Amino acid sequence: MIVVLKQNVAQEQVENLKNWIHSLGIETHVSVGKIHTIIGLVGDTSQVDMDLVGSLDIVESVKRIQEPFKNANSKFHGAPLVVDVGGVKIGGGHFQIIAGPCSVESEEQVCYVAECVKKSGAGLLRGGAFKPRTSPYAFQGLKGEGITLLQEAKIKTGLPIVSEIMNISHLEMFEPVDVIQVGARNMQNFDLLRELGKVRKPILLKRGLANTIDEWLMSAEYIMAGGNENVILCERGIRTFETRTRNTLDLSVIPVLKKLTHLPIIVDPSHALGYAHMVKPMAMAATAAGADGLMIEVHNEPAKALCDGAQSLTPQAFDDVAKAVFQIRPFACKFNENE
Amino acid sequence: MIVVLKQNVAQEQVENLKNWIHSLGIETHVSVGKIHTIIGLVGDTSQVDMDLVGSLDIVESVKRIQEPFKNANSKFHGAPLVVDVGGVKIGGGHFQIIAGPCSVESEEQVCYVAECVKKSGAGLLRGGAFKPRTSPYAFQGLKGEGITLLQEAKIKTGLPIVSEIMNISHLEMFEPVDVIQVGARNMQNFDLLRELGKVRKPILLKRGLANTIDEWLMSAEYIMAGGNENVILCERGIRTFETRTRNTLDLSVIPVLKKLTHLPIIVDPSHALGYAHMVKPMAMAATAAGADGLMIEVHNEPAKALCDGAQSLTPQAFDDVAKAVFQIRPFACKFNENE
Amino acid sequence: MIVVLKQNVAQEQVENLKNWIHSLGIETHVSVGKIHTIIGLVGDTSQVDMDLVGSLDIVESVKRIQEPFKNANSKFHGAPLVVDVGGVKIGGGHFQIIAGPCSVESEEQVCYVAECVKKSGAGLLRGGAFKPRTSPYAFQGLKGEGITLLQEAKIKTGLPIVSEIMNISHLEMFEPVDVIQVGARNMQNFDLLRELGKVRKPILLKRGLANTIDEWLMSAEYIMAGGNENVILCERGIRTFETRTRNTLDLSVIPVLKKLTHLPIIVDPSHALGYAHMVKPMAMAATAAGADGLMIEVHNEPAKALCDGAQSLTPQAFDDVAKAVFQIRPFACKFNENE
Amino acid sequence: MIVVLKQNVAQEQVENLKNWIHSLGIETHVSVGKIHTIIGLVGDTSQVDMDLVGSLDIVESVKRIQEPFKNANSKFHGAPLVVDVGGVKIGGGHFQIIAGPCSVESEEQVCYVAECVKKSGAGLLRGGAFKPRTSPYAFQGLKGEGITLLQEAKIKTGLPIVSEIMNISHLEMFEPVDVIQVGARNMQNFDLLRELGKVRKPILLKRGLANTIDEWLMSAEYIMAGGNENVILCERGIRTFETRTRNTLDLSVIPVLKKLTHLPIIVDPSHALGYAHMVKPMAMAATAAGADGLMIEVHNEPAKALCDGAQSLTPQAFDDVAKAVFQIRPFACKFNENE
Repeated sequence: MIVVLKQNVAQEQVENLKNWIHSLGIETHVSVGKIHTIIGLVGDTSQVDMDLVGSLDIVESVKRIQEPFKNANSKFHGAPLVVDVGGVKIGGGHFQIIAGPCSVESEEQVCYVAECVKKSGAGLLRGGAFKPRTSPYAFQGLKGEGITLLQEAKIKTGLPIVSEIMNISHLEMFEPVDVIQVGARNMQNFDLLRELGKVRKPILLKRGLANTIDEWLMSAEYIMAGGNENVILCERGIRTFETRTRNTLDLSVIPVLKKLTHLPIIVDPSHALGYAHMVKPMAMAATAAGADGLMIEVHNEPAKALCDGAQSLTPQAFDDVAKAVFQIRPFACKFNENE
Repeated sequence: MIVVLKQNVAQEQVENLKNWIHSLGIETHVSVGKIHTIIGLVGDTSQVDMDLVGSLDIVESVKRIQEPFKNANSKFHGAPLVVDVGGVKIGGGHFQIIAGPCSVESEEQVCYVAECVKKSGAGLLRGGAFKPRTSPYAFQGLKGEGITLLQEAKIKTGLPIVSEIMNISHLEMFEPVDVIQVGARNMQNFDLLRELGKVRKPILLKRGLANTIDEWLMSAEYIMAGGNENVILCERGIRTFETRTRNTLDLSVIPVLKKLTHLPIIVDPSHALGYAHMVKPMAMAATAAGADGLMIEVHNEPAKALCDGAQSLTPQAFDDVAKAVFQIRPFACKFNENE
Repeated sequence: MIVVLKQNVAQEQVENLKNWIHSLGIETHVSVGKIHTIIGLVGDTSQVDMDLVGSLDIVESVKRIQEPFKNANSKFHGAPLVVDVGGVKIGGGHFQIIAGPCSVESEEQVCYVAECVKKSGAGLLRGGAFKPRTSPYAFQGLKGEGITLLQEAKIKTGLPIVSEIMNISHLEMFEPVDVIQVGARNMQNFDLLRELGKVRKPILLKRGLANTIDEWLMSAEYIMAGGNENVILCERGIRTFETRTRNTLDLSVIPVLKKLTHLPIIVDPSHALGYAHMVKPMAMAATAAGADGLMIEVHNEPAKALCDGAQSLTPQAFDDVAKAVFQIRPFACKFNENE
Repeated sequence: MIVVLKQNVAQEQVENLKNWIHSLGIETHVSVGKIHTIIGLVGDTSQVDMDLVGSLDIVESVKRIQEPFKNANSKFHGAPLVVDVGGVKIGGGHFQIIAGPCSVESEEQVCYVAECVKKSGAGLLRGGAFKPRTSPYAFQGLKGEGITLLQEAKIKTGLPIVSEIMNISHLEMFEPVDVIQVGARNMQNFDLLRELGKVRKPILLKRGLANTIDEWLMSAEYIMAGGNENVILCERGIRTFETRTRNTLDLSVIPVLKKLTHLPIIVDPSHALGYAHMVKPMAMAATAAGADGLMIEVHNEPAKALCDGAQSLTPQAFDDVAKAVFQIRPFACKFNENE
């Protein structure tokens, strides 16, 4: 961390600041320039409150050189993380498609979709039991019953299951769930993250709608600091001014994260874009860029079938996407290996 | 709600859609144009899932005409809401400044600041006991002990207290707290909002960093749908590309919300901007625009005093802000009364 | 266009509005609902000022159903546009890489780079002669001399050349240039666009940093309305809150634009991201998503070579990117054909 | 400027970098830490290309300490700039309202509005003759004739006039114009800015929709570097995700700019927000925050009057806004004097 002081700062104040930094167990290295004095902080600065330092009257600006995340930092890990979900592996060269309905609605629905997506090559089944809805009047999911239905689909197909948690008090109900998802709106629900750090299941952590990559990694750090090292990051679009897509899918996170962290990164094009016809090209793009997996919404809901189509893919359309993705994948491995 | 159909849609599909809408207890009014057919939905459409309708294959676009919030909607309320906090009133012509330290650190600190801000005219004391921090390694607040210290300051000064909740399991500890704050990062923590709907204390709901005004009102609706009508909205800046301020304070929410809702709206310039010198002009601006109150960070922390200043105001600087604000306020009442 | 009126509007005002619409040569179709009255506008509404209508006191909201662009609209064109640059084709199944230095610096530099990129498979050479620079003190390009150097590289290699225009008074100097580029900062320099509509050369129109897809197509419309039908769209990133990349590359424009327009769409990952190591994965992603081409910065500048590397690619690194892209491309054709 | 080098950089490369910096006439000050080596640049670094340095392979990051703008920098000016427009002063304690129609439509219209706004206290008349329109099919203004009509209103009322230029070739037509406006879409039309640096009239420079404060000041620098010191900055809203307002008015630019520059800063609430009912509260807010003036749209157009109201204010409504603003202004002077 580098602290640039303002011009004409009293020596006494500089000493006060240095003493305070030393009291945190951090050494200082002062360099006096013609205009500005610079203090370099040497040691473990991940616990220094950068905002507090920056707010001091004598400080012009503060710059972090080391990333504030440690557990999630690739510098401290020899190799990319391989998350093993009952034998199904994600990351470190292993690629998976996670597919299934946005909302679990019935045993028939979820089992039918599970069988279809398995046949097309999906490695995990996802399904929503607890649904975060903007409106209190909208359908909030089948809750515990939804988890039970997912479990039945898992028994029938052998696919491990992924489902979203919204409240740590539901943890017991998630016993059959193999990968626990944290949704975009809860990415900075720090109490939830901290509790998930105590769980011994992989966590799929979606990026918040307006969160930077650094904040996302700090949220992974919350989970990992608690001892749960198995975090999968999932890009699902950020909020911008564009209205032709629901959100803006930020695929450049893939090369950025491959440099910063050893955690696997997957991409959810369905929620990011909001239109079925964009899923295939964006799934292909994410795969080509080197994503470790995809999460794709596949439905078979009578309410939607009623009018012949919807925003998520039918099992047939998903099969087509999977075919394209699996043909692109070898080139991503071949050409992105050193990224 | 207006549903615009695509060109050349089969009559059978239109009938299917109409039947499904009727099954929700909503009437339809069809208007066939040269190019497009338009279906108007008549009835309580707040429970219709606009995204689902928009995703149907035969639908070109959907447009909501009525706002999806009812409890938070000014159309269904005769007058602006006056929130009464033990005799201290906010909204409907009553203006309050809520002031105090970002983090409660000691009895001495919080009591000293409380006495100072009271003398300057603040009507409520705020203080953080549970702190949402981006880093798991940063100070997370004094927690329960912080609440106890706030309570002592309340006993000494008579000021009602405002503090942030991050986890519904802490609710019991919040017994001495008069107004429960929901922070920006929890604005769409729907489970927390739903539980706060059962509480019988005013809720101060901060706007999320990337949330629209409509989403903010829907989050208020979650609380109100549970029976807790006393919600105070608090603007604290949104995330944009600008880096000279921490966030972009969006003061235009004041006239927008005065049209849409009867709930009081207050403004927090301290967190939005991140620099002490901007607090006064922005507090004056918010007051002039017709805000029902302000939330301002005031500190007396030895760690910061060490280097003579900080991002939050000293009690002396706060006194200066309060004087300015109280002189501007009458003009806001005089000129904004019909907004 | 659908105009939704406010509640309780006087009949006389509705008649006034209808008469004004009729005076524009547009028919109206009125549908009176229980709460709202809706006026449908039938005819060529591309010339109706939607903002003006929306601003009328009696109007609740306005919704456009038809796109306001006509020349750039795929509905009025049988097939995707193939832009032919002296035999080098872009669009409608033809894929090209446009490569070269950001700034033309010397004959040696530009010819060397041109020969390298040609060998690697690039179809066009790009080079900056006039440089839009944020600072008036930064190097502004070699100007006319830069164009001359590009022309020499064109003679040596046979590659058609692409260069950016900033001022219509420079048009004569652009005589040797095959494709004229409009930069992001000039995307809404309407006077420049209008003049380029009179030119008989293809225009490469970059998306503005904060412009929506619809505004981008309207800027293409400015050029096309003047009679110049050969417009190539180029995505180069939009401005968001993320700081790990210079801008956020929005690859979802590819499927969006394939639905809306017949114009070719290419992607510039170099400027969007700002770091050389991200160019390959994003170039592969753009290709997989179905882009009609890429624009990639390739340098051979001594100033940068001095310190062994830079933000743009060396010819060797570019060769590696081109290889990857050409292997991905057939799958984009195979799987995206119906998009 | 501070350059932080990556770990384990070869000494030879460091020497190469230092030599290159010295060749620019800038001294270096190297500080070797345990992990990182830091090079401080001492001298006039405003001409160093920060992006180029940051892109070097051996560089971890670059940080500018001095602002890259000089002419626009308050550090090099003794006092706030007072722009004198034929005796009407803006800045340095002088406050003005610039009012008038968005589009000049007829002599009757512009003269009537001019007389009204003068009576209400406006110090300058604005009117659009050349209109930047998103659509090539929309009305583009009366052009030269519009300027003539403004001139007539100026003769009748004595109010100096402000009008927008879109093309430097129109400069001669702007002879009667007292203050030349550069619109948001042309804020980075560097060729236009450079030419306006040669003009001897005040320039009103609007902030671009997605431009940072620093970019805005660099655009002012373009004009000032040419010798035209009289630049007035005008905030008119930035593009964000919020849709209840046309743009997000960023009033915090006022305290930010008061620190950074000596140039006057005015605010245009009409264009930023897009709804007449928001103009008064936001005009009051901008005034309270310490703006040096306002630009407000006032109309008297029959097309709009037809339906009783519009997005811009009637002369009567403007009179009400002006009254409020003039009563708030003394408090802004009293309380913001040291900002």
